[in-house]
This record gives sequence, C-alpha cells and structure tokens, in this order.
Amino acid sequence: MADQETLTFPPSLAAPFTPYLPPPSSSLSPYASSYLLPFVTLTFATSLDSSLSLSPGVRTTLSGPLSKSMTHHLRAHHASILIGAGTAIADDPGLNCRIASSVSPRPIVLDPRARWAVTAESKVIRLAGAGQGLAPFILVSQDVKVPAEREEVLRGVGGRYIRLATADNKFAWRDVLRVIRANGLGSVMVEGGGDVINSLLRAPDNELVRSVIVTIAPTWLGKGGVVVSPERTTDADGQPAPPIRLTNIKWIPLGEDVVVCGEILRP
Amino acid sequence: MADQETLTFPPSLAAPFTPYLPPPSSSLSPYASSYLLPFVTLTFATSLDSSLSLSPGVRTTLSGPLSKSMTHHLRAHHASILIGAGTAIADDPGLNCRIASSVSPRPIVLDPRARWAVTAESKVIRLAGAGQGLAPFILVSQDVKVPAEREEVLRGVGGRYIRLATADNKFAWRDVLRVIRANGLGSVMVEGGGDVINSLLRAPDNELVRSVIVTIAPTWLGKGGVVVSPERTTDADGQPAPPIRLTNIKWIPLGEDVVVCGEILRP
Repeated sequence: MADQETLTFPPSLAAPFTPYLPPPSSSLSPYASSYLLPFVTLTFATSLDSSLSLSPGVRTTLSGPLSKSMTHHLRAHHASILIGAGTAIADDPGLNCRIASSVSPRPIVLDPRARWAVTAESKVIRLAGAGQGLAPFILVSQDVKVPAEREEVLRGVGGRYIRLATADNKFAWRDVLRVIRANGLGSVMVEGGGDVINSLLRAPDNELVRSVIVTIAPTWLGKGGVVVSPERTTDADGQPAPPIRLTNIKWIPLGEDVVVCGEILRP
Repeated sequence: MADQETLTFPPSLAAPFTPYLPPPSSSLSPYASSYLLPFVTLTFATSLDSSLSLSPGVRTTLSGPLSKSMTHHLRAHHASILIGAGTAIADDPGLNCRIASSVSPRPIVLDPRARWAVTAESKVIRLAGAGQGLAPFILVSQDVKVPAEREEVLRGVGGRYIRLATADNKFAWRDVLRVIRANGLGSVMVEGGGDVINSLLRAPDNELVRSVIVTIAPTWLGKGGVVVSPERTTDADGQPAPPIRLTNIKWIPLGEDVVVCGEILRP
C-alpha cells in the first residue's frame, strides 16, 4: 500500500474547525459517560444540487484537494468512521487517516443484510494488514447468515462482525451509537452514503448529531444523482415539522469549495 | 406603498460582488453592441438541498436579511429582472429595488400562455403606479389571446405585452435575450422560478450566462421541494455532458448564509 500518499492540513486552515470536533478526551467526557453515546459528526460532500454522486454506485470526485485533506483531518480527530454497506460495496474505501503521525479511526460498516462481500483484497482489509489503518467492525442483523470466510478475513486483521437487532432490515440509530460507545469509541464521523445520511438527518434521529460539517463543490451534477435531502416528518400534532436548520454556523471557503460547520437547531 | 422599507447594503459588503456585475455602461459596451445580447446574471437562493421553496406556489423564506439586501444591490446594478409566470402568480413579487437613490430594474415576465392575470392590485403594478418601480414587460406567445383589461392595466403604468415565437409553448432563450436588448436593456438578472433557472442552467443555453450568484441558506427543506438541478444533456457524440461547473469562484459568507459568485466553465 506504499501508493498511499501522505496528506497535510496546515494548522492555519484547521483552526476554524476545532470548535466542531469532539474534545480530545471525549471518550471520557461527562457527555459520553452520562449518555453512553459517542460524539457524532455528520460529514459529507455534495454538489450545489445536493448530490453525493452522479448515480448510485458511481464514485464521483466533487471536492478539491484541500477538502480531501480536511476530511483526513476530521478522521484524525474521531475514534471511528461510519458508512453504509452500499458505499463499502460501491467505493471499496480505505477509511484510514493519511495525515502523518495520526491515528486512523475504526471503520464501522452498517450492513444489516450482510451484503458486503469483504475479502482479503478489500482496500480497508489490505490497509489494516499493512498497519496503515484499522480493521472494520461490521454491524449485521441478529439473524443474517455471514459466510465463514468473511469472518476469517475480518478476524485476521483485528476486525469483527457485531450483531444487532433490526426492524424492517434497519438498525435504530440509538442502538448503533450505543454499540460504538460500548466498544470504547468516544466519537464517530458519519460519512455516507445517501441513505445513511438522509436517515440520520431526519427528525427525531438528528438530535443524536453533535456537529455537521458539509463540503459543497461549485458544480451541478444534474437530475438523477444520489441526493442528500431528508424525508419530511410531522410533529406530535401531525403538523409538518419545520425545516432542519443549522445554528452556530461557520462558512469556510477551502480552495474552490466551501465547508459549512454547524449544529442542528433544536426546534 | 409606504410600507416598503428602504434597504442598505454597505460598500464593504458590496465590494466582493463588483467583478460579477455588469459594467455600469453595459448597455453601450462593445459586448452588447457586437452580440446584441444583454449581460445575463443568473441569481437565486436555495437551501442546502437545492430547494427554492417547500413546494410549487409556496413562498419560502430561506435566506437572511443581509442576503435580501444583497439581492436589492444586484437589482440596482441590472437594467432588467426576469422571472417566469409561475413565480409571478405564486409570489405576487414587487421586483423593484429598495436601496435609496437607486433605479429599479425593468421586470420581464416570461408568460408564453398568458397565465398571469395581472390586475391593478398586483404588487408590481401598484409599485409602478406609485413611482417605486417599473412596470413589467410581459412576453407572451404570438398566438395567445390576452384579455383587453390586462393590456390596459399594463399600459396605464408604462408596461406592455411583447409577442414572441414559441415552440412547444416555450421561448428560445436567445430570442428572449434579443428582445430584452432590443428594448435598450443592457443587462438582465434571471431570478426564478425553478423551471426558468433549470432551463437556463442547462447546456447549451448556459453559455448565454455571464455571471452566477447563488445564495445558500443553512437549512434542508427535505424531499418534495422545488429543486434547482438541471436536466442532464448529451454532447454532440451522444456522450453524457460533463457536470456544469463554476470557475472564477468566490464564496462570500453573508450573515448565516453563503453566496457563491462565479462564471460557468466552458467545457
């Protein structure tokens, strides 16, 4: 894996992001110990028309080199990084941190139906084997059958399957976060894909999110992309819930992109 | 119309926008005289999920007070302002400029089927009657019947209907712009709604756009909104055209919003 170039994100660029990152001691912080949930950062990059990619399964480079370094800076400050199985299958991502002298986050893959055929050739496994990243924890439904060879591949590099209850083939976000915290991981950045992001953005689960960090690239992918736009919800009286809004906002231009940092406003 | 509050946009905030605005002399500039087309600025405000409003016909306040003042600053620097009939019907907009000592732009309404029942009570007509704005030029198809009372209302305040060829009930953008320029208007800002924006953003018509100024508010309206996202096109060889990208980009935080200024990159 010697082709993995090292990235840098200069302190002058990093400073504005600090208020939105988990505190260095977050696995021991009062927040974590009272709620037994990790610090959750929701982060992703879209086009101006809120697309993550041109179509499902197509990896689309949207943001520039500085935004990429910023993502790795975020990875250096989180104990774990979470994606859905669709992204694991489509992108074969590395999920490590390529900033020198940094610790990589623990990859968490939500895969209730065990769709992701992880092998020794999967990038995240090769990186873990080469000591350049951590092996994934793959969350699967309690009753799904996982082929033995996958279990072996994972165990060989220090990863494992974790079984968790599902309803309609979906995990509850609170359950997922409790499992992450119970494994000693004080923070998690949720990176994709579209279904994962939209479900966590939606009320009431968005109350679990502490920070939002969204990169926007100055391009329109056009109709038909994988769009970030949560389903609308209704409140207790059956009225349409107000739109989801950020507060404590900072817009940070980064190369040709912009990054918005904020917290979700509680209605 | 004494309820119309005056707006200000301080020079320190206005300065970064200047390179993206038509030159003060644009109605006489070599550009205008060689091509006989006006300087076209495409400008609108969306949510993070690229929605203009919660649903068709619903006016949705997205951006903050500074962004509103910025829009009026843009109006002060354009000879005309263009919207579609759907927006005229849904929003009953004023389309004037409320910055002190500024000249309001000429409203241009694209209404091929003469759907907009303009009356003496329409806001843009009342403002024109009160000397607080200009009366609209309404572009209609050559063969559509316009009720005589609408013609009278318009003429009474200095506006008029202009007939223009259509195909499938749509104008060609080049024809629209020629008519605008032929009426002595050297610049136009295209403000909405969704259909108008998406059709002008699409290749090849987006080559007619000189400047793009988009405000983004830190909110997600959720699925079901009126979305800016152009239809995808194919190039001469039938291959998918590359995504539309901005160049010469500036991101300008403005209150809780951000504004991106740029030009459409020619492939």
